[in-house]
Amino acid sequence: MRASHKNLDEIVNLIEKQMKATGIQLLWGTSNLFSRPLYMHGAATSPDARVFACAAAKVKKALEVTRRLGGENYVFWGGREGYETLLNTDMKLEQDNLARFFEMVLEYVEEINFTGQLLIEPKPMEPTKHQYDFDSASVLAFLRRYGLEDYFKLNIEANHATLAGHNFQHELRYARINDMLGSVDANQGDLLLGWDTDQFPSNLYSTTLAMYEILKAGGLAPGGLNFDAKVRRASYQPEDLFYGHILGMDSFARGLETAHSLLESGEIEEFIAERYQSYQQGIGKKIREGKISLKELAAEALDYRLPDLELDSGRQEKLEAIVNRHLLRA
Amino acid sequence: MRASHKNLDEIVNLIEKQMKATGIQLLWGTSNLFSRPLYMHGAATSPDARVFACAAAKVKKALEVTRRLGGENYVFWGGREGYETLLNTDMKLEQDNLARFFEMVLEYVEEINFTGQLLIEPKPMEPTKHQYDFDSASVLAFLRRYGLEDYFKLNIEANHATLAGHNFQHELRYARINDMLGSVDANQGDLLLGWDTDQFPSNLYSTTLAMYEILKAGGLAPGGLNFDAKVRRASYQPEDLFYGHILGMDSFARGLETAHSLLESGEIEEFIAERYQSYQQGIGKKIREGKISLKELAAEALDYRLPDLELDSGRQEKLEAIVNRHLLRA
Amino acid sequence: MRASHKNLDEIVNLIEKQMKATGIQLLWGTSNLFSRPLYMHGAATSPDARVFACAAAKVKKALEVTRRLGGENYVFWGGREGYETLLNTDMKLEQDNLARFFEMVLEYVEEINFTGQLLIEPKPMEPTKHQYDFDSASVLAFLRRYGLEDYFKLNIEANHATLAGHNFQHELRYARINDMLGSVDANQGDLLLGWDTDQFPSNLYSTTLAMYEILKAGGLAPGGLNFDAKVRRASYQPEDLFYGHILGMDSFARGLETAHSLLESGEIEEFIAERYQSYQQGIGKKIREGKISLKELAAEALDYRLPDLELDSGRQEKLEAIVNRHLLRA
Amino acid sequence: MRASHKNLDEIVNLIEKQMKATGIQLLWGTSNLFSRPLYMHGAATSPDARVFACAAAKVKKALEVTRRLGGENYVFWGGREGYETLLNTDMKLEQDNLARFFEMVLEYVEEINFTGQLLIEPKPMEPTKHQYDFDSASVLAFLRRYGLEDYFKLNIEANHATLAGHNFQHELRYARINDMLGSVDANQGDLLLGWDTDQFPSNLYSTTLAMYEILKAGGLAPGGLNFDAKVRRASYQPEDLFYGHILGMDSFARGLETAHSLLESGEIEEFIAERYQSYQQGIGKKIREGKISLKELAAEALDYRLPDLELDSGRQEKLEAIVNRHLLRA
Repeated sequence: MRASHKNLDEIVNLIEKQMKATGIQLLWGTSNLFSRPLYMHGAATSPDARVFACAAAKVKKALEVTRRLGGENYVFWGGREGYETLLNTDMKLEQDNLARFFEMVLEYVEEINFTGQLLIEPKPMEPTKHQYDFDSASVLAFLRRYGLEDYFKLNIEANHATLAGHNFQHELRYARINDMLGSVDANQGDLLLGWDTDQFPSNLYSTTLAMYEILKAGGLAPGGLNFDAKVRRASYQPEDLFYGHILGMDSFARGLETAHSLLESGEIEEFIAERYQSYQQGIGKKIREGKISLKELAAEALDYRLPDLELDSGRQEKLEAIVNRHLLRA
Repeated sequence: MRASHKNLDEIVNLIEKQMKATGIQLLWGTSNLFSRPLYMHGAATSPDARVFACAAAKVKKALEVTRRLGGENYVFWGGREGYETLLNTDMKLEQDNLARFFEMVLEYVEEINFTGQLLIEPKPMEPTKHQYDFDSASVLAFLRRYGLEDYFKLNIEANHATLAGHNFQHELRYARINDMLGSVDANQGDLLLGWDTDQFPSNLYSTTLAMYEILKAGGLAPGGLNFDAKVRRASYQPEDLFYGHILGMDSFARGLETAHSLLESGEIEEFIAERYQSYQQGIGKKIREGKISLKELAAEALDYRLPDLELDSGRQEKLEAIVNRHLLRA
Repeated sequence: MRASHKNLDEIVNLIEKQMKATGIQLLWGTSNLFSRPLYMHGAATSPDARVFACAAAKVKKALEVTRRLGGENYVFWGGREGYETLLNTDMKLEQDNLARFFEMVLEYVEEINFTGQLLIEPKPMEPTKHQYDFDSASVLAFLRRYGLEDYFKLNIEANHATLAGHNFQHELRYARINDMLGSVDANQGDLLLGWDTDQFPSNLYSTTLAMYEILKAGGLAPGGLNFDAKVRRASYQPEDLFYGHILGMDSFARGLETAHSLLESGEIEEFIAERYQSYQQGIGKKIREGKISLKELAAEALDYRLPDLELDSGRQEKLEAIVNRHLLRA
Repeated sequence: MRASHKNLDEIVNLIEKQMKATGIQLLWGTSNLFSRPLYMHGAATSPDARVFACAAAKVKKALEVTRRLGGENYVFWGGREGYETLLNTDMKLEQDNLARFFEMVLEYVEEINFTGQLLIEPKPMEPTKHQYDFDSASVLAFLRRYGLEDYFKLNIEANHATLAGHNFQHELRYARINDMLGSVDANQGDLLLGWDTDQFPSNLYSTTLAMYEILKAGGLAPGGLNFDAKVRRASYQPEDLFYGHILGMDSFARGLETAHSLLESGEIEEFIAERYQSYQQGIGKKIREGKISLKELAAEALDYRLPDLELDSGRQEKLEAIVNRHLLRA
């Protein structure tokens, strides 16, 4: 590992020079703890403490390099932090160890004064059968259990969202309302395929609704949009790299314009405000403020004449038409 | 609602009489907050505060009835607590309201001195597109956010686990190691179908691994196994109800015997203990006890000669053969 | 059944009058052979010959009514023609019987001189676990086995395509190149849900690529676009029906414009023509015309210098960008 | 390619010697037409005729080698015969070319007098997005279109069946009743994962129902059971290969015993015979023999008193219990 670290230092010297020359800055640093056979059973969740130590050494080095290069974030990929079969797995110990690993990281970033945002990237499966960072909710349940929720945010990836049975917007929304939206891996998958295809984003619905959440979050800083994408195998010529990046950038640019147009018009926001307005007064307000009990609410409800209780429509079809209109005219 | 409550009281009188006559006891009470059009947008997460109040009235009554009948638990089904489309949804307000609802429930059960266990039943979708109680992890993330985790446990359903992309054992294990395993809806789904088929359990792998988790948890009390199952549409004759229940009971009985045999033999438990033994001494022990830092671990790892670091095998195939052996000989 | 037929005749009298008054014509007739308990085990594939006879009577009547009303097509929905479990199923007899049913239908439509197109609508599952009309390929394999392929075309439904693991365009393309594209059920599903949601179509990619296939097929006559769609449960007000239909019509209208723009520009067509041009001359032409043998081709290939064999790129990213451009500017 | 063929000949000399020395015989030969970049767009379905020629040369050689080694079958894997995106694909030309390729193969096997069975192995996806040999039905639809159905049989793989949305037994049953069951790739996948995991078979339900179909087919000759399986990544030690093979063999052995027990007992077979007995006499017999028309059947049905038409139960739960009983007592 000493040799590897030394080689890395030389490369980092070069990178540093190029960064200065070009002005390109570093969004985040990370380390790969899943490709080498060493990590076949996991890294911080390996049943072998020596592997945990190797992971510690690698992450320590990567944190130092990220700090040196001025990285704004540091991303933890779950990789093989999970299991292939429950038959051989002590899930409790593994999750405890993963928490200990993050605690050590927190201590170390303070020691070296790395002030970048720490990010965890949810992914449900692949390479292992089940990863503990399955989706945003799994990560939050974990962080909250170990009192770590104030020190991490999430790096949401479109293709990981859909593999976990959620759409991209859901994961962004969930992260946003939990104050955990850190950064975004901007790609797309194929919902008819069960693996991470990491395609360059082309679907304008996906980019529009993603940018809608990002705008509602007030932007991503210190995070950003990162193309964790690759061209298709059959797009193997150099120019395909350009086509892929242009496609991805244009798709997000149009998504931004459409989301901006949607928000400017206020059509969606006003609909939602109107839809929930019963929580702005009367019993609704009391519910929100915790000033009414189950018993009081029940007494209230007993007097309702149920067939007379007219509800609003959810208007899904109308709202979808609004999105289409803004998409085409943005 | 008054009339409905009055009718319910008459039925409950009958039920109470029959319970005394037969000695049959009540595992849990619950209420259905999703079938009526009133709940089309959710119950405690409805955008209409009057619907929240109706849900409060219904749950209040159901809690009283459950207490009166000596119910050991009370189950909350997510039902329509979720969304059909994010376009019309204030997810933050809805989740806050759901938490407020549970807080009101806690206050009320104390008031009426209902000492049964409160349970939440995760289910990812159906009837709505996305339910907030998606899986065990989602529920835990939610409960921990609002400081409610000490007052609820989980009611795990096999078919809901698989719809959420997990196997039954995973959800039971995850609930168990988080001290949240309350009760079990014992059925099975068809993994090639995307809806809740609620079949009577027949798969002995599923029942064996479920009972394995339940035995490891020291049993389920005050919970139990509940057949949330129905016979197939084409099994429409009265005797099919018997065949279904016999199938389900026999399957869980055999699962219990096999799980007991597995645990008695110690083959799996010893394998796991051996697999993680590096955490019982040296740096592993220090990791577990929080007595070693990232820097110290990194220093340790720098001296490893990586190709010499022989790892144990995960032995999945051998372990699967052990399960088959116990299944056939239990 | 006599009473039912009589009632139907009265309704048909009314329908006929209204059709004359409004000028609205009939795209297709059909019959529902799956809702009644009678069809719990299937209709033409029921293990009970009396049920087969009931299905015959119902379809006979429906064919007569369709003829009387000038229906341009008659659609067979698989419904329960399939199985719940292979354990109780004679798949061979059931498929033979289904073929016999279709043969009887052919004889009868000739007898009554019904000249509308007969259509089969593929659907993989729901209500049963597995339906024989799983997808277009399954239907073609079936029809070709029994020599029925000249008498039927396909009614492709978007949501059924995705439930079978294909996208909508795939099923349309497959039907088109097999000269089997008859009519279209224009809706959409939710790829993260495993059941038939039958949503009004809003996704402009889906409608564009559908209209692309339809234009390439030279249109659909005698078929058409049929909204087999319903508003979401929460869109329960009368105006939602208008919003839904407007959304669906606008989406297909924009899809038509975009597909027309794509075809007018020739960008995709020319790319494809160029991509396959090696089959227009030399050995490619001989392959297409069956004028070269495996041995001759092998001899040819032996002289290739493989690293020198430069292939074209598939250009997926560029093509996706072209679709986006036409979508936005159409 | 000449050099490659020469190298192959040397290896084949060695193989031949070892086969003679050990008595081990060859189940089938095949060739890999998807790993090399040359086949990135397909082999017989490549848009480049030179690639078609390379595939021809490779298959010609592989057929010769298979014949020389006494191979009982030759398997065609779809590999990349399909598409990544319909946007760049001439599906009609590609399928026509694939048919031409098979015609050339038929001509050549006759020329060299290779009498082994030709097999096609369905697989829906992976490595490409969509492969033309999606499932058994897709292959049959294709073969029947081009008049090739008498010259090929199917090589069914468990894990490919589930990826296509069918269970293993379904694909075996479908192949069997269409007289197309040739050989079997005996492995299993993980239904919660969307890729080909190729696990050693351990699930006794899967092996029992597979052997049930194989016994009903009168065995597999000239085919056989082939473990297209690999140990899990974490099972990386040499002994794991033994554990994997022992697991697979034991699982199929127990499956054979259980299927034999089921068939010997006649419980399932008799149930099915009884279930369909209405087709052995009266109108049922006439339906099967094509001696009754839609009109005659309709006349018959008009006299049924529908509520009186008692149907048998499908008895799924009872049948599942029978399978469990035989599994445990076989």
